[in-house]
Amino acid sequence: MSGINEDLLKERSKCTFNVEELTHFLDGGKENTLKRKRQEQAIISNKDELLGSIPDEFLSHKEKYESSVKKAVALFTLLRKIDNRDLADLADYKNLLGSVLGTSISQDGSPFGVHYIMFIPVFMSQADDEQKEKWLKRALYCQIIGSYAQTELGHGTFIRGLETTATYDPDTQEFVLHSPTLSSYKWWPGGLGQTANYCIVIAQLYTKGECHGIHPFIVQVRDEETHMPLPGIKVGEVGPKMGLNSVNNGFIGFENVRIPRKHMMMKHAKVLEDGTYIKSKNNKLIYGAMVFVRVVIVFESVTYLAKATIVATRYSAVRKQSQLKAGQPECQIIDYVTQQEKIFTAIAGCYAMKFNSLMLWDTFHVINQQLHQGNFERLGELHALACCLKAISTSDSARFTERCRLACGGHGYMHSSNLPLTYALTSASCTYEGDNTVLLLQTARFLVKIWRQIDTVNITPTISYLKTVSAPGFIYKWENTVEGIIRGFQIVSMKKISSCVDIMTNKVMSGMSQEDAWNTTSIQLVSSGEAHCRAIVLSTFHEGVLKASRTMSPPLAKVMQQLVELYSVYWALEKLGDLLEHTSISKSDVEYLWSWFERSLSNIRPNAVGLVDSFDIDDVFLQSTLGAYDGRVYERLMAEALKSPLNAEPVNQSFHKYLKPFMQAKL
Amino acid sequence: MSGINEDLLKERSKCTFNVEELTHFLDGGKENTLKRKRQEQAIISNKDELLGSIPDEFLSHKEKYESSVKKAVALFTLLRKIDNRDLADLADYKNLLGSVLGTSISQDGSPFGVHYIMFIPVFMSQADDEQKEKWLKRALYCQIIGSYAQTELGHGTFIRGLETTATYDPDTQEFVLHSPTLSSYKWWPGGLGQTANYCIVIAQLYTKGECHGIHPFIVQVRDEETHMPLPGIKVGEVGPKMGLNSVNNGFIGFENVRIPRKHMMMKHAKVLEDGTYIKSKNNKLIYGAMVFVRVVIVFESVTYLAKATIVATRYSAVRKQSQLKAGQPECQIIDYVTQQEKIFTAIAGCYAMKFNSLMLWDTFHVINQQLHQGNFERLGELHALACCLKAISTSDSARFTERCRLACGGHGYMHSSNLPLTYALTSASCTYEGDNTVLLLQTARFLVKIWRQIDTVNITPTISYLKTVSAPGFIYKWENTVEGIIRGFQIVSMKKISSCVDIMTNKVMSGMSQEDAWNTTSIQLVSSGEAHCRAIVLSTFHEGVLKASRTMSPPLAKVMQQLVELYSVYWALEKLGDLLEHTSISKSDVEYLWSWFERSLSNIRPNAVGLVDSFDIDDVFLQSTLGAYDGRVYERLMAEALKSPLNAEPVNQSFHKYLKPFMQAKL
Repeated sequence: MSGINEDLLKERSKCTFNVEELTHFLDGGKENTLKRKRQEQAIISNKDELLGSIPDEFLSHKEKYESSVKKAVALFTLLRKIDNRDLADLADYKNLLGSVLGTSISQDGSPFGVHYIMFIPVFMSQADDEQKEKWLKRALYCQIIGSYAQTELGHGTFIRGLETTATYDPDTQEFVLHSPTLSSYKWWPGGLGQTANYCIVIAQLYTKGECHGIHPFIVQVRDEETHMPLPGIKVGEVGPKMGLNSVNNGFIGFENVRIPRKHMMMKHAKVLEDGTYIKSKNNKLIYGAMVFVRVVIVFESVTYLAKATIVATRYSAVRKQSQLKAGQPECQIIDYVTQQEKIFTAIAGCYAMKFNSLMLWDTFHVINQQLHQGNFERLGELHALACCLKAISTSDSARFTERCRLACGGHGYMHSSNLPLTYALTSASCTYEGDNTVLLLQTARFLVKIWRQIDTVNITPTISYLKTVSAPGFIYKWENTVEGIIRGFQIVSMKKISSCVDIMTNKVMSGMSQEDAWNTTSIQLVSSGEAHCRAIVLSTFHEGVLKASRTMSPPLAKVMQQLVELYSVYWALEKLGDLLEHTSISKSDVEYLWSWFERSLSNIRPNAVGLVDSFDIDDVFLQSTLGAYDGRVYERLMAEALKSPLNAEPVNQSFHKYLKPFMQAKL
Repeated sequence: MSGINEDLLKERSKCTFNVEELTHFLDGGKENTLKRKRQEQAIISNKDELLGSIPDEFLSHKEKYESSVKKAVALFTLLRKIDNRDLADLADYKNLLGSVLGTSISQDGSPFGVHYIMFIPVFMSQADDEQKEKWLKRALYCQIIGSYAQTELGHGTFIRGLETTATYDPDTQEFVLHSPTLSSYKWWPGGLGQTANYCIVIAQLYTKGECHGIHPFIVQVRDEETHMPLPGIKVGEVGPKMGLNSVNNGFIGFENVRIPRKHMMMKHAKVLEDGTYIKSKNNKLIYGAMVFVRVVIVFESVTYLAKATIVATRYSAVRKQSQLKAGQPECQIIDYVTQQEKIFTAIAGCYAMKFNSLMLWDTFHVINQQLHQGNFERLGELHALACCLKAISTSDSARFTERCRLACGGHGYMHSSNLPLTYALTSASCTYEGDNTVLLLQTARFLVKIWRQIDTVNITPTISYLKTVSAPGFIYKWENTVEGIIRGFQIVSMKKISSCVDIMTNKVMSGMSQEDAWNTTSIQLVSSGEAHCRAIVLSTFHEGVLKASRTMSPPLAKVMQQLVELYSVYWALEKLGDLLEHTSISKSDVEYLWSWFERSLSNIRPNAVGLVDSFDIDDVFLQSTLGAYDGRVYERLMAEALKSPLNAEPVNQSFHKYLKPFMQAKL
C-alpha cells in the first residue's frame, strides 16, 4: 500500500487556507502543537507494542481485557517517561484526558481510565494532608491503582438514595462498610473488575447512631502482593457493554468490611476518634471536582466528533457512487448536497464545540479560583453552564457522529471504520456523570430561579442576554445575519423560560403542588435548558471566531467565518419551529435561510478535507480503514478483513460438526 | 429467582383493557396467536440447546461464528419439523422473517438469514422452470445454502456501476465470471463468509462483445462434500461489525471462473447457445422482489421497536429514582413526564408502524398481483410507498429504540439489556436494501412527477390527498383534532413538494441544469419525501384504529384512540416548524397542543405496561435482563455478570504478567 488517493490529493490542493495554521490555532499555539506531537510520537514509534497484531474486536471478552491491561501498562510505562512531573496539574490533566491521546489510549477505553479521571482528582480534592502524604505519590506513580465507586445497582442519579453504609465503631476506631441489599452493590466503577486494588467508596456515614449522609472513604480492595480480593469483599466485572469493553467496569459488595478511621477522606468533614462528627465548613467545594469531570467530558466529545468527521469527510472524498449527470463518470459522494449537509454540519458542530470547550475551561478556571477563595457567587452559574454544555456537547457529538457513520453507508457499519465504537463511546457520555435530561432540568432550575428575580439579580456573563432581550423597550426585528440568528435564539430561550414559569405559576394557582407543576412542565423545561445552551454555544462560537480572526491570516479567518455561518443557519433551520413561534421571522426569511444554507454548504465544499486534516489526528489514533490520511479505503478494508482468524483456514470446523450433517440429513 | 416484581404486578392490575384481546388483534386473530405460540413453544422448550450456556458476547469473533452455526442448525432442524410445507408461500415467509421468531433466531443475526430472505425469494422470481426443478427443493430443504452477492466493495447504491463481469463463451457454452479490480469484489453477502456453498451473483453480462447490463447468475462457491472454495474463487468474511456479527457477511472475488450457460437465471432475460441475448419481456417484475424485501424490513422494524419498548417500559416501572416530592419514598421513573415522553411516544410509534406495515403488505399484495397480470399502472406508487415506509419505519425504529436505550440510563448500556444490539440491528436497516436518504429522494422523484401532472394524473389512493388539498377552493382552518393534524400534515407535504418544484423550475430557468437543480434542492426534496410519508403514516394509523374499533371492546378501542392522539400530537409538536410555516396553526393552538400532549401521556400512563405486554414477546426471544416479564432486574443483571469468564477466577493472569511488574517497578 503506497501513495495517496488521487481524489484526496486534489481536495488538498484546492484548500484555500493553511492547514498547519489552523492546527496551531486549535492547539493554542505552535509550541503546544509541537509538544503534543512529541508526546504522540513516543506512542507512534511504539505502536506495534501498543496496538498489538490482532485487533481486539476478534478476541473474546476475557482476552480483550487481558490485551487492554497489556496495552495500558505499555502505554503508561511510556507516559511515565514523557512528563510525569506535570501530572498533578489540572490543566495538564485535562489536556491528557480530553486529548486524542486520552481518547485513543485504548480504542475501547482503558482499565486505567478511572484511576486518572476520577480516583486521582477526587483524591486530590478530598484527602487531607496526611492522606495525601500516604497515597498520592503512590497513585500518581501507579504503585496503587484506584477506582471510584459511587453508583449502585439500584441508585444512580439520586445519590442521597445510596444504600452502602459506613458505620463508625469507636471501640476499634474503624468504619464498618456494608452492602445491605443487592441493589446497594456498587456497579460501574471503571477498572474495578480485575484491575484496581484501591477504591474510593461513597457511603452513608453513621456515627453515634446518626446518619450524616454520603461521604467518601478509601478502601483497599485487593492484596497488593497477591491481588486477591480482601475478606468480606465481593468484586467482579459487570460483563459486556455497548462500548467501553476495555474499561473493566466492576461491581463490589461489602460484608461488614472494617477500615481504619483515617480511611475516611477528611479534608472537609471529619469523624473524631470518639465518633464525633465534624461538619464540612465548605461543602460546596466538592462541586469543583464534579464540574471538572464535566469539563473533561466536553473536551472528549469534541475529540470523538473530530474523529467521526475526519473519517466521513475523507471517505466521502474517496468514495464514488452514481452519476450527478447521466453519462458522466460516477462522482465523489461529497458532491451530493445531502451528503454535505450530514458531514459539513458535523464539522461546523465540532469547531463550535471546540470554542465552547475552551470557554467552559476558562470559566471553570476563573470560578474555581473564586471558590477556593470562599467566593461562591458564581457557583450556580458555573454549575448550570457545565450541566448544559455537557448535555449538549455529548448529545450533539453522538448525533453528529451517528450521522457521519450512516453517511458512510454499509462501510460505516464495519468495526474497522472505527465509527461504531466512536458512537458507542460518545453515546455513553450522554448518560454518565449526569444523564443529559437530568442535567438540562438542572439548568432549567437555575434559569427559573434567575428569571423569577431577573430585575434584581446580579447578572453574570452567561445569562446577561436574558435581561437584555426582556428589557422594556427592547425591540427586535428578525435579521438574516449571524447576529440576528443569535439574537433570535436568545429571544427563544427567554420566551421559553418565561413561558415555563407562567405555566407553572398558573398550575400552582389552580391548586397543583409545586412538584407536580414542575414535573408536568418538565418536557418544556428541558427544551428551555437546551434553548439557553444553544444561545450560548452560538454566541460563543461567533465571538470566539471574531476574536481569533484578528490574528489569523485572511484566508483562514474567512473559512472560520463560513463555518460560523453554516452552523448558525443550520441550527436556525433545525429550530425553525421555535423561531417561527417566538420571533418575527417571516416566510420569506425562511426561504432566504434555505438558500443561505445551500450557499454555506458550497462555501465549505473546497475546504472540507482541509478542515478535518487540521484536527491533525494521526492514523495510529484514528484507527479507521475509511479515514486514513492516504484514503486507500478498499485496500485497508480488505487488509483488516484478512486479519480475521476465520479467514485463516479455508473450511471452518463447524462445517463438519454441524453444517454437513444438517445439509445432508435424510428428510 | 421467583415471583414477579410488586410494582409490575400493580401496573398490570391497573390496566384498563384486556391484554389478550390486543395480542389477538395484533396477530390478526386468536387462531394466529395460537399458531404463533405453538411455533414459539417448540423453540422455548428447546431453549437450552438453542441458546447455549455462555452468552455469545463473551466469545471471540470466531467462536461466535461457530456458536451461531450450531444454533442456526439446531433452530432450522426444528423449523423443518414445524411447517416446512408452508415455506414456499410468500405470506408465511413474511411472517417467519418479520416476526419475533425471525428477528430472534439468533440474537445478533443468523448465517442462514440471507439464504431465506434473499436467496430463495430471488431464486423463485428469477429462475426458469428447469432451474427451479434442479435447485429450489434443495434450497428449501437446506441441502444447499445460498447467499446473494450484489454489492461490491466500491459499489452499492448505483447498481449499474457494478464491475463484476460475466462474459459468455459460445465455444464452451459457459460464462466466465471475473472480478477485474479490488473494488469489484463482492462485499457484504450474508452467510457467504464460511457458510454458504451457492450464491446468486449479480454481474455485467457480456455476450458477442456487447454489454447487456447486470443479470443474476447462480454460482457454486464451495464443494458440497469438502466445503473447500472452488478454483478461482477467493472467499472469506468481512470482519467485525457494529452488529449482525453472527451473520457471517462475506466477500468474494472471481478469477475467470467458468459456469455453465444454464447458470444464468433465465426466467426473464436469456442467452442462447450461440450467445444471442434475448431481452426480458417484462423487466419490471424484478421490482416485486425488491419491494417484498422492503416490506419484510418494515415488519422487522416493528418487532425491533416492540422489543425496545417492552424493555424500557417494564424497566421504568421497576426502577425507582429520586423523589417527586421531598420526604416521599423514591418513585418509579415511569412517573417522570420526561421519561413518559421518551417511552410512550415510542410505544405509540410502534403501534402506528404496525398498522402501516399491514397496509403496506396489503398494498403490495394487490399491486403485485396486478404486476403478474401485466398491469403496471400502480408500480410507481408501490415503489414510492415501499421506499418511504422502509426509510421512515427504520429510521423511526432506530431513533425510538435508542431513546428507549438512553431512557434506561447506564443499565441500558449493558449488553445484557439487549438494547445495544437491538439498536445496532435496527440501525443497520437504515442502510441496507437502500440507504434511507436515497429512498426518500426516490419517493420525492415520484412526487415531483405526480405534482407536475396533478391535474391530469390518475390519482391512486396514497396520493389522492395531494389533489384534495391543492384543489381550487380548498379552504383549511387549523383544527386541534387528530383529523386536523392529519390534514395539516397533508398540506405540509403538498406545500413542500410544490415548493421544491417551483425552486427547481426557477433554477432551471436561470440556467442551471436539471441535475444541478435537483442536487442543490435535494435536502428539501428529502424533507418532502418524509413529509409525504408522515401524512400517510398518520392517516393509516388513524383510519386503521377507527376501523378496528368497530370490533374491539370499548376499553381497548379507547386506549387505541389514545395512542393515535398521542402519536398525532407528538408529531405535530416535532414538526411544528413545518406546521407554523405552511398551515394556519396559531400560537394558542400550539399551547393547546402542549397541554393535549401532556394529557395524552397521562392517559397512557396506567396502560403502558399492558400495551407492551400485549406484544407478547417471550423472555426467550426478548433476551433482556431489564425487560423480563417478572421485572427482577437487579438479580438478572448480577446473574448475567456472574457468567463472565473473567469472574470465574479471583485473580486474572494479567496481574502477574503485566500489572504487578508495572506497579512495583523501581522508578
